[in-house]
Amino acid sequence: MSLSVALIGATGYTGLEVARLLTQHPHAELTVATARAEAGNPIASVHPSLAGRLDLHLEELDPAEIGKRCDVAMCCLPHAASAKTVKQLVDAGVRVIDFSADFRLSSLEVYESWYDVKHPWPERVGRTVYGLPEFYADEIASADVVANPGCYPTSAILPLAPLIRAGLIRSDDIIIDSKSGVSGAGRSAKVGTLYCETNESIAAYAVGSHRHQPEIEDLVERISGRATDVLFTPHLTPMSRGILSTIYVRPAEGLAEEGRSVGSADAAIERVMQCWRDCYAGSPFVTPVDHLPATAHVAGTNYVQMAVRRNGERLVLLSAIDNLAKGASGAAIQNMNVMFGYDQKSGLG
Amino acid sequence: MSLSVALIGATGYTGLEVARLLTQHPHAELTVATARAEAGNPIASVHPSLAGRLDLHLEELDPAEIGKRCDVAMCCLPHAASAKTVKQLVDAGVRVIDFSADFRLSSLEVYESWYDVKHPWPERVGRTVYGLPEFYADEIASADVVANPGCYPTSAILPLAPLIRAGLIRSDDIIIDSKSGVSGAGRSAKVGTLYCETNESIAAYAVGSHRHQPEIEDLVERISGRATDVLFTPHLTPMSRGILSTIYVRPAEGLAEEGRSVGSADAAIERVMQCWRDCYAGSPFVTPVDHLPATAHVAGTNYVQMAVRRNGERLVLLSAIDNLAKGASGAAIQNMNVMFGYDQKSGLG
Amino acid sequence: MSLSVALIGATGYTGLEVARLLTQHPHAELTVATARAEAGNPIASVHPSLAGRLDLHLEELDPAEIGKRCDVAMCCLPHAASAKTVKQLVDAGVRVIDFSADFRLSSLEVYESWYDVKHPWPERVGRTVYGLPEFYADEIASADVVANPGCYPTSAILPLAPLIRAGLIRSDDIIIDSKSGVSGAGRSAKVGTLYCETNESIAAYAVGSHRHQPEIEDLVERISGRATDVLFTPHLTPMSRGILSTIYVRPAEGLAEEGRSVGSADAAIERVMQCWRDCYAGSPFVTPVDHLPATAHVAGTNYVQMAVRRNGERLVLLSAIDNLAKGASGAAIQNMNVMFGYDQKSGLG
Amino acid sequence: MSLSVALIGATGYTGLEVARLLTQHPHAELTVATARAEAGNPIASVHPSLAGRLDLHLEELDPAEIGKRCDVAMCCLPHAASAKTVKQLVDAGVRVIDFSADFRLSSLEVYESWYDVKHPWPERVGRTVYGLPEFYADEIASADVVANPGCYPTSAILPLAPLIRAGLIRSDDIIIDSKSGVSGAGRSAKVGTLYCETNESIAAYAVGSHRHQPEIEDLVERISGRATDVLFTPHLTPMSRGILSTIYVRPAEGLAEEGRSVGSADAAIERVMQCWRDCYAGSPFVTPVDHLPATAHVAGTNYVQMAVRRNGERLVLLSAIDNLAKGASGAAIQNMNVMFGYDQKSGLG
Repeated sequence: MSLSVALIGATGYTGLEVARLLTQHPHAELTVATARAEAGNPIASVHPSLAGRLDLHLEELDPAEIGKRCDVAMCCLPHAASAKTVKQLVDAGVRVIDFSADFRLSSLEVYESWYDVKHPWPERVGRTVYGLPEFYADEIASADVVANPGCYPTSAILPLAPLIRAGLIRSDDIIIDSKSGVSGAGRSAKVGTLYCETNESIAAYAVGSHRHQPEIEDLVERISGRATDVLFTPHLTPMSRGILSTIYVRPAEGLAEEGRSVGSADAAIERVMQCWRDCYAGSPFVTPVDHLPATAHVAGTNYVQMAVRRNGERLVLLSAIDNLAKGASGAAIQNMNVMFGYDQKSGLG
Repeated sequence: MSLSVALIGATGYTGLEVARLLTQHPHAELTVATARAEAGNPIASVHPSLAGRLDLHLEELDPAEIGKRCDVAMCCLPHAASAKTVKQLVDAGVRVIDFSADFRLSSLEVYESWYDVKHPWPERVGRTVYGLPEFYADEIASADVVANPGCYPTSAILPLAPLIRAGLIRSDDIIIDSKSGVSGAGRSAKVGTLYCETNESIAAYAVGSHRHQPEIEDLVERISGRATDVLFTPHLTPMSRGILSTIYVRPAEGLAEEGRSVGSADAAIERVMQCWRDCYAGSPFVTPVDHLPATAHVAGTNYVQMAVRRNGERLVLLSAIDNLAKGASGAAIQNMNVMFGYDQKSGLG
Repeated sequence: MSLSVALIGATGYTGLEVARLLTQHPHAELTVATARAEAGNPIASVHPSLAGRLDLHLEELDPAEIGKRCDVAMCCLPHAASAKTVKQLVDAGVRVIDFSADFRLSSLEVYESWYDVKHPWPERVGRTVYGLPEFYADEIASADVVANPGCYPTSAILPLAPLIRAGLIRSDDIIIDSKSGVSGAGRSAKVGTLYCETNESIAAYAVGSHRHQPEIEDLVERISGRATDVLFTPHLTPMSRGILSTIYVRPAEGLAEEGRSVGSADAAIERVMQCWRDCYAGSPFVTPVDHLPATAHVAGTNYVQMAVRRNGERLVLLSAIDNLAKGASGAAIQNMNVMFGYDQKSGLG
Repeated sequence: MSLSVALIGATGYTGLEVARLLTQHPHAELTVATARAEAGNPIASVHPSLAGRLDLHLEELDPAEIGKRCDVAMCCLPHAASAKTVKQLVDAGVRVIDFSADFRLSSLEVYESWYDVKHPWPERVGRTVYGLPEFYADEIASADVVANPGCYPTSAILPLAPLIRAGLIRSDDIIIDSKSGVSGAGRSAKVGTLYCETNESIAAYAVGSHRHQPEIEDLVERISGRATDVLFTPHLTPMSRGILSTIYVRPAEGLAEEGRSVGSADAAIERVMQCWRDCYAGSPFVTPVDHLPATAHVAGTNYVQMAVRRNGERLVLLSAIDNLAKGASGAAIQNMNVMFGYDQKSGLG
């Protein structure tokens, strides 16, 4: 029997991607999709690409009702609003995958300072598993709530965390220069994301003030056990999907030594690649590669491609993901698979 | 001494293009730019590309004041609102180039039926010159108000009108399939023109109901003196600028005959090319070409490239313009040049 | 046990799409991929998106060997070269889905005149099923060779054929204005398809001389039983994938009458929609829709969205497909499913 | 009387941009354009956008002939080939603006090691002015050869050099993460720059091995007088034109102190802005801005927009240029203006 899935907040790009991915999932079915303004309409009226593929009408959000009809809910609401709904859903007996940032950070104080809002369910902050099955599969398997990771953090944590945990690179001098497709900015009508504003244009935004900077630091610290500082700069890139992160790091003393003593830059590079291969041996989606990854190489998939190069005394790490797939909805499906005992790759091609 | 130009409604894409073109005009200067919500701010705060290039603060619209400071106004307001302002400006002694459709059609009835609004200055309908200097340069030179043409109509009238006037093609079986860049949809925040909605996507819109259909018919009739029916379909194309019109016509009896008797399709094609060359001999921007025109070939310029091919019994006419330049703001500068006795190409490269 | 599939000519975009689709097929596996220049290299060296997803080395083409190892071959070679290989594969006992035009047309003479080449296996011309399961599922099920349809023809035949067969529209006045993404031009290095040549540009090409024009006519005639003439114009559109066809037709006498007598344009439109719904009731991918279809609505899927509007005396039919999916590789998978008794949707989401 | 300009190597994107810019130059005219394979054809056959705008036939390269007919030559040939031609042109009495890297570096050894070629005119290496009029206007004014700057270097040197010269930032810890449009890769047919390979994709390339890294270091050292180390990473971005450089630097001791003592991050930022304003007071194209620059803001212009932000202990410098304009052909026109005593902005809008 199929898993019954609810999608809370179905009108955005992550909602569409969840719906799309579930149409091809062998063990799960989307049975409830909610949207405030559009309730009563067919989901295809909001997402014409679902016409003929998904016959479902949008509903008002009713947590108790979802409790009766669904096993799991994907919650795509804005922060703070999300935590409130997540609590209601959990109370109604539904396991939840939350796309917001509400349960990602370990510190309530950091959350409330960066998000400038009072947290509606503070007890769960710091006690909710972060939905990266590459590191937390066991906790995810038994969780009632999973905090689905941010898109940029996924692209940064996966290459960084194992290298810092293994002591191969320094954790206090990390620059992350990330380039995201425009879908990361959401589907609400804003001049800044009109076609003619973003086409043929790349620009940095939120320099020094993006909320994913503390999320990256928090998670790398939790995974590696080492205090970590990162400088993170996001860029809006003229493409719909994808994130490329170019990450500038310094080899730790040992690795730097080793490179010099072997007399070859390749020694350090090979150590990095081996660390990644070891760490992700059981992770079907994380793929260290020799070529330089491009976002097109992972578009529409849940895969992560990662590479490393040397330039002078620094190493340059590169990672590419699809921001809507592994960066959001694909990760959510992967988490759902882990929560309900399916193969991680079920429904993810 | 420089011409002093006012720009009414400066925050959209046509407004920006007017401002941009005037920065490089040898005889004209933008001295007033109005915007309701943004009055008081530098124009560069709305159009960052003007930073360091144009030092001007946006103002509230004050027709009397503009009457004192300006020789000519470019009016980029929505239809109906525009006509009202145009009247005030004319009353204040300013010559006006109106970007709206308010004075383009010859029939008040057709205007009010297609635009579903009461016309604020009905006396001037049918008595205002249509701003195509290729046909109406004399009237434009002495006009107080010029109705700047629609973007699609420009791309259709220029290839069609001389051929119909010369009796080379039938005027009752014309299909115009036009493809426009997204800037044609304006700069207001709408979901439909978000980057992720229009990127990697082409679609028809307003099939059978676009207001440029009667404008094309009206103008071709006025220029050619022959009753004209067109079927017009616009498409939203994933690019910022440009219009390509692919126009399917039938040779008139004579031309069809001739083609057959000479035993060569090329005879008809040569007749079309010659008709265009004759008609546009004195028009610096209209360029009949042998290659198939692409919108990129005219991007950022006021040029029109036109070509013709045969397929079976029909001729296929192709024309490419930049919708913001020859399709709007470039045409306005060209009209201004004609109104004030400058070379048509002044400031237009 | 999985179906064993060979991919002949794996380096292009259709080859990649076949490989990609097979990675998610529940009953089939890609076991052989051939490429002349790249033989010996991993397929991921040519298609980096397959890194970590498909562990396969490219081989030289050896029909006898493929005969031993594979049940079916997808042949993505150029025309003429393809027919020769198809024959060798059939002789080796492999069933073949041929992506070239070699077996699509019913007339050898038409083929040799439009493709300007001597056909290497003329006996099979006119005796090979055209791979549109929507019309030829029975023949496909038992075929040794299936001629996979052209991309433009698929987008035109599906909306046109049932309407002409039902006598609803005239078959002698049809204009097809099609807009294709750049992947339709293939993956070989040419200046004309460089990013900077096609970005921000739309243009017609091969006006009056495109080989898909006779293919459309041939198939519509075979399906409808009525002599058919079409005028077809393809356009290169600044997007990677997708075809939108805008098709201008005239209602047949009866339908035109009916529209007038019922006093409503909607009568004709409803008849068209009903005809499509009836014709495609058993076809999971063909979806008549009320909205205007956009290529983005079907991107990455095997679906076809079709709509109809009226403009004056003509009807405007609109259809959207993904040129690499339903227009090529998705259709091939669909054909493979029919040939081997699987559900048409297997592996196609 | 107009300056007579020769364009050597006219078929690429920089050649087209030179030709385009010269059509609107008030004091200069393109009189000779050379191209090996296309000699004899109209320039519009290679660049259809010039149809009707520039009536010129391509010629074979003949330095002596150019010596008779031209005052100045723009040389757009590949490195090494360029130096050889530059020498012939100088010998023929023509002043030359060289687009290649042949005369940019001060060290012959560095040149021959990074470009892996024997320099054809080694005597001039280290004795040719670098064509940044913002720093070298006097030398340019009297030069017989000007080394037109690289596109990435322009985007990096302009923000960096004055800050290092003023001792505001450290010169030994600089990371330059640059994003370029695809036109930077040139117009020759390569799979890697096909539309479908670069669309919807961003990727780094030449990590640790790009030839512009030593050029940036060399020039910053020459301008500032301080030994400089940079780490430079270029990225191919899905847009035709533009470069955005995101530059991570550390304040020098004094500036860091000052920031802390004034108790405000803004003190350091204001010092940077003031340093730029002072340095570029007489430079019409360099524009420090408060907003975050986007490549679209400078597209098609010779302007440079630069901004600064703080993130932790580092400053983030951002600069945007059009790679074909200020990054290549616009800079060349600007250099030509300086060489012949015209206003720097002549013909550059």
